[in-house]
Amino acid sequence: MGDWLHATIDPAQPERVPLPRPDLRRRHVALGPVAVFGASNFPLAFSVAGGDTASAFAAGCPVVVKGHPAHPGTGELVARAIKAAVTSCGLPEGVFSYLPGPSNALGAALVADPRIKAVGFTGSRGGGLALMQIAAARGEPIPVYAEMSSINPVILFPAALRDRAESIAEGFAQSLTMGAGQFCTNPGLLIAVGGADLDRFAAAAGTALSAIAPATMLTPGIHASFESGVGALEQHGATQLVARGAEGPGLCAARGALFITDADGFRADAALGHEVFGSSAVIVRCRDVEDVAALIAGLEGQLTATLQLDAEDEPLAAKLLPLIERKVGRILANGWPTGVEVCHAMVHGGPFPATSDGRSTSVGTLAIERFLRPVSYQNLPEGLLPAALKPGNPWGIARRVDGALVAGD
Amino acid sequence: MGDWLHATIDPAQPERVPLPRPDLRRRHVALGPVAVFGASNFPLAFSVAGGDTASAFAAGCPVVVKGHPAHPGTGELVARAIKAAVTSCGLPEGVFSYLPGPSNALGAALVADPRIKAVGFTGSRGGGLALMQIAAARGEPIPVYAEMSSINPVILFPAALRDRAESIAEGFAQSLTMGAGQFCTNPGLLIAVGGADLDRFAAAAGTALSAIAPATMLTPGIHASFESGVGALEQHGATQLVARGAEGPGLCAARGALFITDADGFRADAALGHEVFGSSAVIVRCRDVEDVAALIAGLEGQLTATLQLDAEDEPLAAKLLPLIERKVGRILANGWPTGVEVCHAMVHGGPFPATSDGRSTSVGTLAIERFLRPVSYQNLPEGLLPAALKPGNPWGIARRVDGALVAGD
Repeated sequence: MGDWLHATIDPAQPERVPLPRPDLRRRHVALGPVAVFGASNFPLAFSVAGGDTASAFAAGCPVVVKGHPAHPGTGELVARAIKAAVTSCGLPEGVFSYLPGPSNALGAALVADPRIKAVGFTGSRGGGLALMQIAAARGEPIPVYAEMSSINPVILFPAALRDRAESIAEGFAQSLTMGAGQFCTNPGLLIAVGGADLDRFAAAAGTALSAIAPATMLTPGIHASFESGVGALEQHGATQLVARGAEGPGLCAARGALFITDADGFRADAALGHEVFGSSAVIVRCRDVEDVAALIAGLEGQLTATLQLDAEDEPLAAKLLPLIERKVGRILANGWPTGVEVCHAMVHGGPFPATSDGRSTSVGTLAIERFLRPVSYQNLPEGLLPAALKPGNPWGIARRVDGALVAGD
Repeated sequence: MGDWLHATIDPAQPERVPLPRPDLRRRHVALGPVAVFGASNFPLAFSVAGGDTASAFAAGCPVVVKGHPAHPGTGELVARAIKAAVTSCGLPEGVFSYLPGPSNALGAALVADPRIKAVGFTGSRGGGLALMQIAAARGEPIPVYAEMSSINPVILFPAALRDRAESIAEGFAQSLTMGAGQFCTNPGLLIAVGGADLDRFAAAAGTALSAIAPATMLTPGIHASFESGVGALEQHGATQLVARGAEGPGLCAARGALFITDADGFRADAALGHEVFGSSAVIVRCRDVEDVAALIAGLEGQLTATLQLDAEDEPLAAKLLPLIERKVGRILANGWPTGVEVCHAMVHGGPFPATSDGRSTSVGTLAIERFLRPVSYQNLPEGLLPAALKPGNPWGIARRVDGALVAGD
């Protein structure tokens, strides 16, 4: 309990030579008011009352939410619920504010406001980069936690591909098209050594995909952007279409799209490594395992990497892991990245451009650290020490005393 | 032991409904190569083998040091010692590099290099801001930990001032002039309610200061900058000179300087709140305690704040503490900020512009966190898990399992 306070006590050593040590105590405090920009695709988990708002509140920060124009009704309902909770808890009204509206200027003014001390954002790369620039240009720069884009590479290892190309392909097609592919962790890149087993995978994935009905996307804008991204891949000289999803009716309905290219083709155009938000993926055929390693080394930062592997593949995976770790926030084996567990060990983050700040996560308990900073107290009279640091440990929290962790009540 | 790895394990819950939980494990890994810019004023503790280098190494990051032109000989000696240590430890040669030279272009190229993943800097506000801009303009932005400037306010509380104005003044004059005042935590601002007790303090501080011999500053450039800063305060319409240090011979010899102004005069010119690196300080006379609070609320971010207070002052201090906490990284009572203990609870950092990133410290064990980021592992086969996260805890480190901390060996 209270671990986020990082209560740390280095007691005085008045007899130390050549110099005595003063009494030093540290705890972490709230950064200040946080601006939160929700995502289009999760009106609950990543929006008005989403992870950024929850972790900022948990850290003790007031929150100002810029409502997402893709779900104005849900946004307002949730904002009213938070307002009611603020009132019933007897908190100051300013603890939570909600600014709805489609205007980019509103969001820009919010980030530029000197009273805002941190920003949480989930959305497009362009949007995130714009907010980062505004924050960097302030008189007082502030941290921006922007989760922006990721194509979530899936590495198909040789033995797994040989033994179960078809079942992996079936699982992949389901993961790719779930929720019309509108997940930050949607698997958009498959990497494997070329050959008969990869051909089997591609054929099976194509068959599975072509049987999946189109799905309605969140907004006309997102749908148009998806169609434009898929269209560019259809026209691209280095990629071939493997399959599209089934035709069918529906407003803003998107059909999945699977392409294949070789490693040299992929490397020759950085655009092939950019996210197409929705159910679009590219298979990259490598010459050999060295080519797989080189391809991974050349990737941009990602939220996740997925290993499809069998016991026989583990020595190769062990060689690739140090490369993969440098690129991603989460590595998973024999599953699909689209589920994001809310827990202590989760990292939903990763090196740029997956996020603006790979030192943190937007999901799980570690997210509270985004909105904290440390303060040290030296020789303060007991009466002035914060409760977390007082003698006798009145809050009963875990504390580090002279380097050793002392459990709480 | 190994706490910096933040080993965290959320075991699988295969029976959980509606969905099973996968096995999730987290540890923290090195950010990558770090560029370190040492300070002029600490050729050992804040330079080639200083805190930034030590904490980057501890995190597992290679280090490239840009040597400071103020101590090229010491820099090279220390760099050779590190090189010898790298060899005798059998580490790869690239773990440490040393780039001496006065050129700003060299430092700029280092920060812009895509292989560099973080920057540690101790120096001037101008230098730190320049590096922050270079880092923000990179294709991949990176964290910059720049410790830049601080005037380290000292708040003289009424009872303490009444009972021991003279002894506080004596301690202040010693702290101000120690090492020719060339400390990041040099006390450059004194805040108190005006009146006879503050007049006693000013008189005693002036007397003490005027008996202190001039001290040689580190470089002609630092000396010239000090003289220029003191000259501007001498000419300033809102400040009056209380005292200068004693005259005397010496190369680049600096005499201490103490000024006094009132709160309105201080607020009217932001330049009065800027650091004059060296033994220069300004006393700000406030109307009443509300004026003290307003003055604190208007300060920029600082490394430290010092409270000179007696038991009788504690109720007032308790009221001001929430304001002070928002401005500084370390709060100390009845001492002087110029000693910086290397320990677990130390924070040598603070809100902008004291540093570029108030979420961390450059001194103490917490500094390792600057150069780490979290990685999560989901359902990885045991053979592929890093040792820190393997079943059986082979390293015997403290780990958090299902939310509860489990002590190490």
